[in-house]
Amino acid sequence: MITVDEHRARVLAAAPPLPAIAQLISDSTGLVLAEDVVNRWPVPLFDNSGMDGYAVHRADATVGATLRVVADVPAGSPEDPAMAAGEAVRIMTGAPVPTAADAVVPLEHTDLGTAISEAAPETITITVEPKEHAHIRRTGEDTPAGSVAVAAGTVLGPWQLSAIASAGHETILVHRKPRVAIISTGSELIDPSGTPERGQIPESNSVLLAAAVTQAGAEVAAVTRVPDDEHALRSVLTGLDVDAAILTGGASVGAFDIVKAVLDGTGSIEFTTVAMQPGKPQGFGLTEFGVPAFCLPGNPVSVAVSFEMFVRPALRQMAGLHDIDRPRVIRTAAASWRRKPGRVQILPVVFDDETVRPASRGGSGSHLVTSLADATALALIPADVDHVSEGDRVTVMVLS
Amino acid sequence: MITVDEHRARVLAAAPPLPAIAQLISDSTGLVLAEDVVNRWPVPLFDNSGMDGYAVHRADATVGATLRVVADVPAGSPEDPAMAAGEAVRIMTGAPVPTAADAVVPLEHTDLGTAISEAAPETITITVEPKEHAHIRRTGEDTPAGSVAVAAGTVLGPWQLSAIASAGHETILVHRKPRVAIISTGSELIDPSGTPERGQIPESNSVLLAAAVTQAGAEVAAVTRVPDDEHALRSVLTGLDVDAAILTGGASVGAFDIVKAVLDGTGSIEFTTVAMQPGKPQGFGLTEFGVPAFCLPGNPVSVAVSFEMFVRPALRQMAGLHDIDRPRVIRTAAASWRRKPGRVQILPVVFDDETVRPASRGGSGSHLVTSLADATALALIPADVDHVSEGDRVTVMVLS
Repeated sequence: MITVDEHRARVLAAAPPLPAIAQLISDSTGLVLAEDVVNRWPVPLFDNSGMDGYAVHRADATVGATLRVVADVPAGSPEDPAMAAGEAVRIMTGAPVPTAADAVVPLEHTDLGTAISEAAPETITITVEPKEHAHIRRTGEDTPAGSVAVAAGTVLGPWQLSAIASAGHETILVHRKPRVAIISTGSELIDPSGTPERGQIPESNSVLLAAAVTQAGAEVAAVTRVPDDEHALRSVLTGLDVDAAILTGGASVGAFDIVKAVLDGTGSIEFTTVAMQPGKPQGFGLTEFGVPAFCLPGNPVSVAVSFEMFVRPALRQMAGLHDIDRPRVIRTAAASWRRKPGRVQILPVVFDDETVRPASRGGSGSHLVTSLADATALALIPADVDHVSEGDRVTVMVLS
Repeated sequence: MITVDEHRARVLAAAPPLPAIAQLISDSTGLVLAEDVVNRWPVPLFDNSGMDGYAVHRADATVGATLRVVADVPAGSPEDPAMAAGEAVRIMTGAPVPTAADAVVPLEHTDLGTAISEAAPETITITVEPKEHAHIRRTGEDTPAGSVAVAAGTVLGPWQLSAIASAGHETILVHRKPRVAIISTGSELIDPSGTPERGQIPESNSVLLAAAVTQAGAEVAAVTRVPDDEHALRSVLTGLDVDAAILTGGASVGAFDIVKAVLDGTGSIEFTTVAMQPGKPQGFGLTEFGVPAFCLPGNPVSVAVSFEMFVRPALRQMAGLHDIDRPRVIRTAAASWRRKPGRVQILPVVFDDETVRPASRGGSGSHLVTSLADATALALIPADVDHVSEGDRVTVMVLS
């Protein structure tokens, strides 16, 4: 039996970041930037107006002065009108400030106020004097051309993508999102909407894993259910073109544990026992095609726990993320429970700002899938602890 | 000028949860359940084995006893073999326990251990005596038939979806994900990869909003850019079949503010000023087609801030979520800054466990999009505060 940390280290060593690919920014939400993005130009690109108003010579724009409006510069206009002494140019927010001007007087600082017509007025009278460079956003005052707008390794959220667009880029290098195959094995499995006969149960692991893979920032490429038939499993595996495969069931010591029968010893795949409860039987390694394969036990809670401990960190590392782990907090146990020591207990729990308690409605078995629905976190109880008492401090891995 | 809270209240009143629709669980990750999901059967469905091993009469299974193996029950088998005294049945994890048995002896508690062959052995000898009902998962011990597996209002993550599948459901009622149109207006806007002439700038708001809409749990239905041309905007709006529209630019008092010119007074849409900085000019209301329309100012930081304060809460409410707001924390200012009081300042910031400071590289203007890329939160500075000093306590709206 190996420790959770040992198994995790083995998994992470075999799941390096995927190669970078060129992709449109509009398809890159949540992905990790693989190279520095540099400003193609200064930001702002040119001196532009921060207000709707009038570009003026500041020396002319004293209170009470009447200026002649000689031109009109809307946003998007390429015009750079000349301005003699005593002249002004109507200008809209974002429009280029005429080279001749050294201040912008907002609409509300003139006699006409914000009553605006489509055509510019012939004259305006100043009511509030502008400061030097008032309401002019200067070329490059945010960042100069050639500076790094967004650095390699950054996770691309809305604000980062906006900065990249402003820096003049529509296609960027990002780490590819891992494409994942999900394979549930077991002759007992039927569709959830079916009517089970004796011995049959609804298959629930694939929907759990598909949602978990998506929320981890990876992509579900294929979802397949196979009976306990080695030939069927082999044929599913042969057709896969993915970055990782997650298999459930058939990973233990049973007579019909076909995942183990088919994959053990192929590529670098090894089946082992990990000192955790649930989730003890684990298979992992690269398939003969070089694809990381996670062979998880079949019980729903084991699947949920194994995903959180091993698969999610690996998928996030493959996606180029540095922050691969869930946050952990310490809470006070609001209940007591006994357990068999020897393995780390990983228990679905509910927690609040102060306390934590088991989520289970009727027990703590790895098959208690309904109880899982109530849980919002996993408590991690060290292997040598044989009971948790109310008031004990407990480490909680927060899921959302 | 109205307050941020007043505008928010107006927005939320016009954006109720969308109607529930029937949808496959595999398409429902992150959505909100619109009705209680009830177990179609007890969970577990039948007494089943928690281990690979042998079903026995417990009275027979004393240490040293040799039992005759009369049948073999793999997972998925409908068999319910009879067991006379002194007889055992090989059974795999998850398989139905024979009605005649009252305990399961794990493989490792027999003389054969985990050395397992495809065919069941003829006899086994017990090495560790089982307790009553050992390793039998009892029918309904998780939850009984007819009980609520997952309650209406629950956000559907991996674990909840798994419980729903186990409860026997593949199609559920969920609140629909809002479908959102994004319309950037402005004759100055060009593709980010283009080469701007004087007066032109790369369009960055649509990629910001598309990513933000997606991360808020809504769906981007259309992304359009229109020049400052009323006819063009009208024609885009006429074709829309969405749950909400977000427009940027043209919402203020300028001569070419076409969003205001086209939408003001139609349906329930009103343009107003909100006591916030940035983001003062805001338009909102239902279009004549009954679709909530958010008319945001055009500067990137204004768009980012307006989205967080108004659009995101509304989209999440439309999606049926109760938790519509970002978490807020209090941090200590690690820098000082002055500001013009009168409006709430909403400032892109970076923060750690203790401190917060402005994210801006060169200033705090609403056009400083590159600085936005560094920010991880928004600081909220009350309207009456004219300066923040190092050491002051600051409210921080956390974005991730």
